[in-house]
Amino acid sequence: MSASVSPLAPKVEVQVPPVPGVTFATAAAGIRYKDRTDVLLAAFTSGTTVAGVTTRSLCPSAAVEWCRSVLKKGKARGLVVNSGNANAFTGIKGREATELTAEIASRALGCKPSEILLASTGVIGEPLDATKFGGVLQATSDRLAPGPWIDAARAIMTTDTFPKLATVTVALDGVDVTIAGMAKGAGMIAPDMATMLSFVFTDAPIAADVLQKMLSKGVRDTFNAVTIDGDTSTSDTLLLFATGAAKARGVAAIKSYDDPRVRTFRKALQKVLADLAEQVARDGEGARKLVRVHVTGAVSRKSARRIAMSIANSPLVKTAVAGEDANWGRVVMAVGKAGEPADRDRLAISFGDIRVAAEGMRDPTYDEATVSEYMKNDVIDLTVDLGLGQGADRVLTCDLTKEYVAINGDYRS
Amino acid sequence: MSASVSPLAPKVEVQVPPVPGVTFATAAAGIRYKDRTDVLLAAFTSGTTVAGVTTRSLCPSAAVEWCRSVLKKGKARGLVVNSGNANAFTGIKGREATELTAEIASRALGCKPSEILLASTGVIGEPLDATKFGGVLQATSDRLAPGPWIDAARAIMTTDTFPKLATVTVALDGVDVTIAGMAKGAGMIAPDMATMLSFVFTDAPIAADVLQKMLSKGVRDTFNAVTIDGDTSTSDTLLLFATGAAKARGVAAIKSYDDPRVRTFRKALQKVLADLAEQVARDGEGARKLVRVHVTGAVSRKSARRIAMSIANSPLVKTAVAGEDANWGRVVMAVGKAGEPADRDRLAISFGDIRVAAEGMRDPTYDEATVSEYMKNDVIDLTVDLGLGQGADRVLTCDLTKEYVAINGDYRS
Repeated sequence: MSASVSPLAPKVEVQVPPVPGVTFATAAAGIRYKDRTDVLLAAFTSGTTVAGVTTRSLCPSAAVEWCRSVLKKGKARGLVVNSGNANAFTGIKGREATELTAEIASRALGCKPSEILLASTGVIGEPLDATKFGGVLQATSDRLAPGPWIDAARAIMTTDTFPKLATVTVALDGVDVTIAGMAKGAGMIAPDMATMLSFVFTDAPIAADVLQKMLSKGVRDTFNAVTIDGDTSTSDTLLLFATGAAKARGVAAIKSYDDPRVRTFRKALQKVLADLAEQVARDGEGARKLVRVHVTGAVSRKSARRIAMSIANSPLVKTAVAGEDANWGRVVMAVGKAGEPADRDRLAISFGDIRVAAEGMRDPTYDEATVSEYMKNDVIDLTVDLGLGQGADRVLTCDLTKEYVAINGDYRS
Repeated sequence: MSASVSPLAPKVEVQVPPVPGVTFATAAAGIRYKDRTDVLLAAFTSGTTVAGVTTRSLCPSAAVEWCRSVLKKGKARGLVVNSGNANAFTGIKGREATELTAEIASRALGCKPSEILLASTGVIGEPLDATKFGGVLQATSDRLAPGPWIDAARAIMTTDTFPKLATVTVALDGVDVTIAGMAKGAGMIAPDMATMLSFVFTDAPIAADVLQKMLSKGVRDTFNAVTIDGDTSTSDTLLLFATGAAKARGVAAIKSYDDPRVRTFRKALQKVLADLAEQVARDGEGARKLVRVHVTGAVSRKSARRIAMSIANSPLVKTAVAGEDANWGRVVMAVGKAGEPADRDRLAISFGDIRVAAEGMRDPTYDEATVSEYMKNDVIDLTVDLGLGQGADRVLTCDLTKEYVAINGDYRS
């Protein structure tokens, strides 16, 4: 939808290696537009476990409800993602569409429908015609391959301006295993959880409950620390698949969270999640600047998070950043409205390393020209110290530009 | 700051009669810009009572703190309002500036500093040089007059595109008394309380505690039911002054909230507050459409308010309205993220009288052309029925346009 690639996009294309046990292919099913790639089908070898985190919206999409039910068993053989239609707020037809999609996919992959995960993104409230998947998924399953990942990442895009991929390799029992993931943004993004769709894959053998615990812990400082516009999607879905294919290379299964390798794996997983989450912020609709909001000295970490979110969601702070204006008065406003303990006369605010306010007033050493120069950067660090305690946190957001309004003012028509 | 008057401005200028006991004058004190009217001085006859509601920001301005202290006694002889500088987050200098301003005004009006109310609006974080009021307020006090109100309403504007005035006349003891008020918006507006500065005056004789109770009850469905951008100012101040001058015309003093005339007066006051609050929404920064969000069938009135606010603060709903797109999918999203009881499959959504969704899916009778035509109106009624209970509420907002971003992207520089 957006004409040009975000200026905040990674400069180098991420090279993602195959993940043993994972194959995929894309197709054009004509869900919303003709001749446009809009379906991703992924297949996993037998024994693959899955964990997931979904939106906290009280009006979740049919696909989210489907995933929740599959996640209870923790087994996965396939994943179908479509763009163009979110299958949200589609009533009984929505549930029927998920059932039909899973049935078609299970036939194509030779597994049970209850082993198929589903994700849909796009317009809300329009019935999804799942019969369109009929011939397409069968044909797509004949083309399953371990790459290229970039095609998969592109297939799930909507208003995204660039595909989002991340990968790391980590040694378990002396054997390298891979973690690779993709994500799509780019608006209607706010915790909890902050997004969007993201799918992460590994060949490490990890039990579903251990996988779930790692993922649940992993989202706090990654996807749940990103906000684009404070709006929470009905379709937010993050899934983590572990094929266990590395067992063939001598990696013993991780069956308990107390396994010392969990720490190693979690650290690597965290890198992938953080990388993808940052890419989502970098591709926020209309974004021209990535803003990292740091809050320190709060009474607790939770309080720091709330204050950081209040700043990150403030239209006035975000438009000021768009205007390259270090308007710390608006930051004070956003702290004041957060409803969290704050003492006006202890606040200190910095843009980058430049302290612009301290002890409840303008820092006398603060030079307007220096801070104006700083505001021209692509990445802005905004730090608020409350001077009250040890609570600290950080969230990511982007500026609010006219392009955001343009993108969202004529999305549906 | 904004070039043209909001298309939502009242078509006819409001004619406000004198309010016995109230005189005022405006001046250019050079607070921020030269040769621009930026100060309003109002004087009240002896015996005037005052009530007020101020921001819930935890980082209030120095003027707000000053008012809170004056309001404890409930007596007023003067009011000084300046635009251009909010005197917020100005530390000890901010308090000193309020003390000096009150002292200068009290000398000009011949009263105690503790009988002077203060309000400041404009840039946050810049010290306010109160010495500039020195000669100006004395000179201004020589020009005090019972009108014209339009000058007073203009003097307190910042990014407002039109002056906001409202008035009603109500009979107490068979004698007409006047209620007249002014307000300024136009951004950084969200409960609690939703504003901005507003000053309302009456010649009715009403005890301060009764006045306070009426005002506190009055804001819920007026100023606290307006949101422009979800940002709460550090300076929000609504003051209600009662000069009691109507006593000379035979109106007995209202000393208790149980007085049957309280009901009559409150009804009239409510009209003025509602009128001013709606004008604030109509002059939201960049606004092209007034949006009335109605929520019915919620589990409680409080729950209805929260859901209405979630919709009214959603950038995606607001940009859709700007694009004249009846994107009810985004309304579902905003209901879902409100965190209040909602059953997706019982939701019904209407734009105007056109029901676009019911029972968790698109209304089969819904015609895109009809609703597209409706979305071209200046005033949009958006109704969500939750189908759960009897809780209902309504809030006002406006659309989110590129002009909002333009106004706020270069406000300070």
